[in-house]
Amino acid sequence: MPIAQAPVRDIRFVINDLLNMEQHMAGLDHAMPLDAETMSEIVEQSARFLYETCAPLNRNADEQGCRYENGQVTTPDGFKALYQAYCENGWCSLDADEEFGGQGLPYLAHVVIGELNSYFSPAWSNYPGLTHGVREMLDHFGTDDLKSRYMPQLVSGQWAGTMCLTEPHCGTDLGMLTTSATPADDGSYSVTGTKIFITSGEHDLTDNIVHMVLARADGAVEGVKGISLFLVPKRLSDENSELGDSNHVSCASIEHKMGLNGSVTCVMNFDGATGWLVGTLHDGLKAMFTMMNSARLNTGIQGMAASQAAYDGALVYARERLQSRSISGAKYPDKAADPILVHADVRRMLLTQRVIAEGCRAMAYLTAMHIENAKFASDAGRRERSQLVGEFLTPIAKAFMTETAMETTDYGIQIFGGHGYIREHGMEQWHRDAKIFTLYEGTTGIQALDLVGRKMMHNQRGTLGPLGEDIQAWIEANPNARYTEALNSHIELWTTLSSEIAGRAAKAPDDLGAASVDFLMLSGYVVLAWLWARMDDVASRGEGDHGAVFYSAKQKSARFYFEKILPRCDSLAATIRTGSGALMAFEDEEF
Amino acid sequence: MPIAQAPVRDIRFVINDLLNMEQHMAGLDHAMPLDAETMSEIVEQSARFLYETCAPLNRNADEQGCRYENGQVTTPDGFKALYQAYCENGWCSLDADEEFGGQGLPYLAHVVIGELNSYFSPAWSNYPGLTHGVREMLDHFGTDDLKSRYMPQLVSGQWAGTMCLTEPHCGTDLGMLTTSATPADDGSYSVTGTKIFITSGEHDLTDNIVHMVLARADGAVEGVKGISLFLVPKRLSDENSELGDSNHVSCASIEHKMGLNGSVTCVMNFDGATGWLVGTLHDGLKAMFTMMNSARLNTGIQGMAASQAAYDGALVYARERLQSRSISGAKYPDKAADPILVHADVRRMLLTQRVIAEGCRAMAYLTAMHIENAKFASDAGRRERSQLVGEFLTPIAKAFMTETAMETTDYGIQIFGGHGYIREHGMEQWHRDAKIFTLYEGTTGIQALDLVGRKMMHNQRGTLGPLGEDIQAWIEANPNARYTEALNSHIELWTTLSSEIAGRAAKAPDDLGAASVDFLMLSGYVVLAWLWARMDDVASRGEGDHGAVFYSAKQKSARFYFEKILPRCDSLAATIRTGSGALMAFEDEEF
Repeated sequence: MPIAQAPVRDIRFVINDLLNMEQHMAGLDHAMPLDAETMSEIVEQSARFLYETCAPLNRNADEQGCRYENGQVTTPDGFKALYQAYCENGWCSLDADEEFGGQGLPYLAHVVIGELNSYFSPAWSNYPGLTHGVREMLDHFGTDDLKSRYMPQLVSGQWAGTMCLTEPHCGTDLGMLTTSATPADDGSYSVTGTKIFITSGEHDLTDNIVHMVLARADGAVEGVKGISLFLVPKRLSDENSELGDSNHVSCASIEHKMGLNGSVTCVMNFDGATGWLVGTLHDGLKAMFTMMNSARLNTGIQGMAASQAAYDGALVYARERLQSRSISGAKYPDKAADPILVHADVRRMLLTQRVIAEGCRAMAYLTAMHIENAKFASDAGRRERSQLVGEFLTPIAKAFMTETAMETTDYGIQIFGGHGYIREHGMEQWHRDAKIFTLYEGTTGIQALDLVGRKMMHNQRGTLGPLGEDIQAWIEANPNARYTEALNSHIELWTTLSSEIAGRAAKAPDDLGAASVDFLMLSGYVVLAWLWARMDDVASRGEGDHGAVFYSAKQKSARFYFEKILPRCDSLAATIRTGSGALMAFEDEEF
Repeated sequence: MPIAQAPVRDIRFVINDLLNMEQHMAGLDHAMPLDAETMSEIVEQSARFLYETCAPLNRNADEQGCRYENGQVTTPDGFKALYQAYCENGWCSLDADEEFGGQGLPYLAHVVIGELNSYFSPAWSNYPGLTHGVREMLDHFGTDDLKSRYMPQLVSGQWAGTMCLTEPHCGTDLGMLTTSATPADDGSYSVTGTKIFITSGEHDLTDNIVHMVLARADGAVEGVKGISLFLVPKRLSDENSELGDSNHVSCASIEHKMGLNGSVTCVMNFDGATGWLVGTLHDGLKAMFTMMNSARLNTGIQGMAASQAAYDGALVYARERLQSRSISGAKYPDKAADPILVHADVRRMLLTQRVIAEGCRAMAYLTAMHIENAKFASDAGRRERSQLVGEFLTPIAKAFMTETAMETTDYGIQIFGGHGYIREHGMEQWHRDAKIFTLYEGTTGIQALDLVGRKMMHNQRGTLGPLGEDIQAWIEANPNARYTEALNSHIELWTTLSSEIAGRAAKAPDDLGAASVDFLMLSGYVVLAWLWARMDDVASRGEGDHGAVFYSAKQKSARFYFEKILPRCDSLAATIRTGSGALMAFEDEEF
């Protein structure tokens, strides 16, 4: 696959022109606000760095994969040097506190580099990505002692991090986990158990790895209320973070997967390993879920980046590949055939990829803005409101952006025809890599239950909450925007469906589950409709520095979205309304 | 993945109970008619043979793949022994003429074994599958001399066959092909050129391989009207089919693919190779397209078999995997958690796989029946009618059954959660294998253009033709069948859309292309609605020997289809109606 330049212009358009991040960042009280120009500089510099150093490694990372020998894992060629350069350039510490050696920039700066990492190599992106999550957790729940011993190394990237949740018999259902933690006299714990599917559990990029492990402390009750969180390092260190003995943590094997082969997935054994409690005893899930929103958004962004990469790759091919004539007459009569870009069905696939990628980017940054506001907005009312919106958007962003990536990366193959199936062209890798995004950090089904059960029914009492209000307010404030009619009717549909579902939930709880994924996808399409209407509106004014072709294409993309993608809501609404009867009628033996 | 027994009961239900194949076969004049009992015997025996010999090879075939060294290809372990046993058991010669050593059975017997081959190992299924296509072509267009020299070996499986169409610069657009054929004095031709994507182009299963090669004979005009078909063997043979010298045919390399790794895909060089004309000079595409309907149906069946396999695999896991409690209260309180089969969203995925697989099976056998009738029905009117129906159904069956396989095999992974992404469970292999089905034998886009352009607009003058009449007639003859209302309204929608598209085609030819894939998919959903209404009707009478649970499940599946799948037509209709404006508005530089 040809390596495309990153979508720098589109990122800048969303951040500056659409969402006015300068204003957003000025309202935060934790970080140095960034002006639009500095933000653009970060986007451009990081894109250039990754284009040169990371992109060329992505194909080999898939072919070579990670290699396991005697408990040691070797990452693909080039990843170690890339990791060093990445850390030295400070890309891993953008939004970390200056107290620990970070640069004190807003979370959004990290989100941008997360997208770019994943755009150039999703497998690579997991190495810095996981460490960021560990840092967040430790920052919020760690004792001062733990922070001082671990944060500087995690911020500099000298040490890496992991999350250890899943066990062989429990993934979604964490209440079943059996890894144990026994207190020692010195305040530490002895942690024993086996964890599976541990991303970056063992590798050669750093000389220490900090595992965040869910375990059941002695005397804990059964179920999720007896789970605590422990920091368990691969190697022990003294108070000056000088490395000492190995801890009793070992990598038993690595998985052979469908894709994302450059990102190692480990079975980890903790065999009386020394660990320290993070957060409150028996309340470990709270700490884990605190960083879940950003972890889930990050996975959604991996999907969005894959959609963008699949579009960019397919577009190059669609311009170059000459095959057949346009159905409405030759467009390039001097060539042996027309480029396949002329064919309506090829355009249908390309534009679907494009409006999904660009719409999801807007959704991703909007969600990130609310996640950041919820924690750091100076204004308390804004924090509270963004908490609800961010929580509501997160499962939508995670599941919608990854499920649609399965479609867009499939089109990436399809546009290449038979050549798309051949590994060397790189298009099929995007599809294989993307599949894990719908699974890890909670499957699509789990996101959907989180949306309809916890977020909509519980937190927002069966309504669309402040996000719905934001959309209504925008429509009222922009009566002359295009697509207002379609947007209005879909908001009405969405509102009606949410109250229908809420109304049925008490009588027929399975209706919630039956409707959940369709409702989540419909929510995604409606949110994207709002964002496309806004992007159309901004583009129609053409006030930025992106040029006439950019703004014209943006408006045509909005039209495509409303005519060709948004109607998917019709079918989703119809299936939501048929309830759970057809599903639950089956007796076990009838399957 | 657990190896499931083949869907023998469901195949028998479709053949005997739904489509009454006994009656169909009695109306043919080319083959020994099969009674229902013998047909069932063939299904059961072949399923047992393949379950024991073929199924255990499928995982390794993916991991080991085919190996290339110095022009030689080694197939995965066990394939050679399987191939010998398969041929010795006569499974490759079921529908071949007795004159050439075949068993003289109807085409349907071959279709059944095609499904079962693909169910147990799609990669394996290509080896016997391609040879069958070559046999068909030779049977219809070969000279008596060629037939006598090649047919017996192809029928016995002693020699294998390939189709050589694609070249590096031309796939869909065969008019651009440049492989040349120069006549020699003895009536043979000297064939020179490079062909790519040649399935089974070289392997170790047989001691000769018969290539059917499209090439341009000296003096041919440009474009598709200058293409001829040649039989070019790997090794030359005398009139008694005794093998002699190697021909100038070589395998230059093999492709490394996303999946279907057990099926070898070759770059073939023909370097002044000796070949013989098959069919009329410069009219080679006619010969090639004669077997295209069955080749395309065969690919569709590969998709349908993958859907069935993905369902069967996922169902085993959904019964075994304990995780969380049912949203409507614990269903198995004595277990640590409920099996995931209780969750509505898991059921949604499983039942989608199931109604797609079973509906597609009915579509596949219906199409096969018409393809066979078109050639061999005793009655001329029946031949003519089935020719139209078979031609109309073929692109739908090919594209619909393979596109839906991408969804069902994706669900196969999704139901397994993270475990679905791990290669050893085998679910992700189905998805990787299935992707080629939407590409080879003509991409989905090509099938869709064939449907709306050639079949609907040209052959049937913008109507749904005799298939539409058949459905109408069934509705009228079964006024008390369930789902008649939904079926009627969808037939009306389908008819209206087809005349709308036909009406716009002259003024806006790109509208045809813009609507094509959505229209094809909608056609598939409507045909499946008809077949599900019929299956429901048959099952509600419960007259066969499949047992009460089978018939009850069949009726519940029909309900699921009408409530949860058929509404997809709403969105497809909406996008079809927006035409091509949103697609064609983009200037090249706006992409």
